Amino acid sequence: MTTGVTAPLGFRAAAVAAGIKPDRLDLALLVADRPCAAAGVFTANLAQAAPVIVSREHLRGGRARAVVVNAGCANAATGSGGLDDAREMASVAARAVGCPVEEVVVASTGVIGVRLPMEKVRRGIVEAAGRLEPGGGASAARAILTTDTKPKEVAVELRVGSAAAVVGAMAKGAGMIAPNMATMLAFFTTDATVERVLLGRALREAVGDSLNRITVDGDTSTNDCAVVLASGARPGAVIDREGPAFDAFRQALTEAARRIARMLVRDGEGVTRIAEVRVEGARTGGEADRIARTVAESPLVKTALHGGDPNWGRVLAAVGRADVPLDVGKVSVWIGDVHVAENGAAREYDERVAAAAMREDPVRLRIRLGEGSAAGWMWTSDLSHGYVDINAHYRS
Amino acid sequence: MTTGVTAPLGFRAAAVAAGIKPDRLDLALLVADRPCAAAGVFTANLAQAAPVIVSREHLRGGRARAVVVNAGCANAATGSGGLDDAREMASVAARAVGCPVEEVVVASTGVIGVRLPMEKVRRGIVEAAGRLEPGGGASAARAILTTDTKPKEVAVELRVGSAAAVVGAMAKGAGMIAPNMATMLAFFTTDATVERVLLGRALREAVGDSLNRITVDGDTSTNDCAVVLASGARPGAVIDREGPAFDAFRQALTEAARRIARMLVRDGEGVTRIAEVRVEGARTGGEADRIARTVAESPLVKTALHGGDPNWGRVLAAVGRADVPLDVGKVSVWIGDVHVAENGAAREYDERVAAAAMREDPVRLRIRLGEGSAAGWMWTSDLSHGYVDINAHYRS
Repeated sequence: MTTGVTAPLGFRAAAVAAGIKPDRLDLALLVADRPCAAAGVFTANLAQAAPVIVSREHLRGGRARAVVVNAGCANAATGSGGLDDAREMASVAARAVGCPVEEVVVASTGVIGVRLPMEKVRRGIVEAAGRLEPGGGASAARAILTTDTKPKEVAVELRVGSAAAVVGAMAKGAGMIAPNMATMLAFFTTDATVERVLLGRALREAVGDSLNRITVDGDTSTNDCAVVLASGARPGAVIDREGPAFDAFRQALTEAARRIARMLVRDGEGVTRIAEVRVEGARTGGEADRIARTVAESPLVKTALHGGDPNWGRVLAAVGRADVPLDVGKVSVWIGDVHVAENGAAREYDERVAAAAMREDPVRLRIRLGEGSAAGWMWTSDLSHGYVDINAHYRS
Repeated sequence: MTTGVTAPLGFRAAAVAAGIKPDRLDLALLVADRPCAAAGVFTANLAQAAPVIVSREHLRGGRARAVVVNAGCANAATGSGGLDDAREMASVAARAVGCPVEEVVVASTGVIGVRLPMEKVRRGIVEAAGRLEPGGGASAARAILTTDTKPKEVAVELRVGSAAAVVGAMAKGAGMIAPNMATMLAFFTTDATVERVLLGRALREAVGDSLNRITVDGDTSTNDCAVVLASGARPGAVIDREGPAFDAFRQALTEAARRIARMLVRDGEGVTRIAEVRVEGARTGGEADRIARTVAESPLVKTALHGGDPNWGRVLAAVGRADVPLDVGKVSVWIGDVHVAENGAAREYDERVAAAAMREDPVRLRIRLGEGSAAGWMWTSDLSHGYVDINAHYRS
């Protein structure tokens, strides 16, 4: 099976080197053969990029035909001029594709505070529209990258009654990754027919259990967005009410989103190792998530992950500062299968076995609170020289 | 003038190499000639180290005669055995000094989750008690360090009516620095006579405007503590009510705490450059502080500081995710004296001048919100390879 956003029927894509970044693919166009049911979720950062504002407006109608994305410039903190640029990017794409401007989703990623080179963007969109092809998802996935080291694409098959359907996706990540309501940029497609309210609900559920649970550096982006388009190109795969077909679809969408989320953490800036932080025995899922996030974002935990050092004291210290009321004297910590702390204090354990568990990939950190029965989790990455190198001079 | 905790009259100190760490001073003893009025503030982390629990109990009486501190082991997450160790550390010091055990403050810093080598601690305390001297503050300041590169001592003179008095201090910092109610370990002394309720109030004020406003890595320690002892050894320097003398004292204490706080950030793990983050035009001081802290802790802002890259978009993105309601369209940002962003978007500015301002030390980041008239600030550090190196293998 092919993978990515053109794996489902009814989509074509293309990418071009528009010159926004030097000598590489930097503009992607994804177009459905016919208008799609569509939904999106966007960054919770109050500083919202211009394309986020425009795409949210456009998706209010629940329909989309095309997605246009550029790398190299985030079109964020660019004021009313930047908003005009995002609208023009949509209208150029709409003309090239032959659809209403409200059916175009726009997205940008790159440096904040710089205006788009619109002449290059206009030319790039027109050029891309002339090159659309059913197998174009792969080059589109390459064109949306920034400091990512590899493209991120998945495809998941599902059954809708007797019919088959596919969910495809592409995304970019790498830095400023602590999605809140969405991640940097993630695009999902399906060839099932999905009623738009159900489509939006499935997307929110999928993202809440995947992209919203990853962190590389705790910095929620201004440009986060996750969008899904349902082409309905697959005969018989119709999801118009709750039930087994909808359940199959949201499972497939969640599976695609989780695989994308994991790829994003794995390819985070400078990442050499990833970890799952699981919190059990909390009073509420929200409290469990908050603790998991505090541990996952702790620079001391992340550097210990980098060094493969089973320094669980840092995990416990992060639990204690998560702003969740709890009795530290009831907390247990596991690294992999090694039970290293109990009742808030060290247990007898084999340091070599714990060190080996801290060098697995992913590392599994499990924290049991003893306050209740709710659980939560996060995926995180280590903190390495590479992260510092990439971000000390990203703009230059 | 001499500096540090023995600069005020009425204090002696000593340090020994007790063998808790290999081949270096690792145990300090500070003793007042007579019982002192005393006050302390301690970590807000729910995971509190054994010495924090014991010292808080002891300081409830508002009196102290001695402070005993070890490096190399935090005595945190050590359960009831660790609590016994901390109590024994206090009682050994009490016997050696000849004071009630409740007049001993204990503090530990180092690895979490490991028990103290009590045989070495006992011997070290007795040895230190035999070497106390009025100029011993300097070696005490060296003995309490962990990954710090240099000792941190200050002395500030003040006038109490016609009398003179001195505030002295020593501290250690380096990592797990995001104090909340106190910092890692900071010890203040004065030879003024200060009524204990006023002493506690002055300490809380001083710490709130200094040590609680610094961050190296956002990880609030399990062992944070700041303690002040007033020997009353200076004739005529009596502070027993509010008024000009108390004001002079709290100013001196705040000045000492600020200088210590700045030293702590400057000598943070791997730090090559520091920055002041100032937020103005907030609705409340609490909201201003929250935004300042979010910017100060952002890994992307900290790596930009490291690279000397005036990447103000990251500052604006951090402002937007600080969980404070505001209109990003009214936000201005300055780097040094360069006004780089206005109304949430880029201004025209000279990139070379902004880059030069980003390479000052300290860098001054100023954010104006336009929501009200409250202000707040934080001191922070850059994020470098050095931080990763130190923390990837700290325990080994």
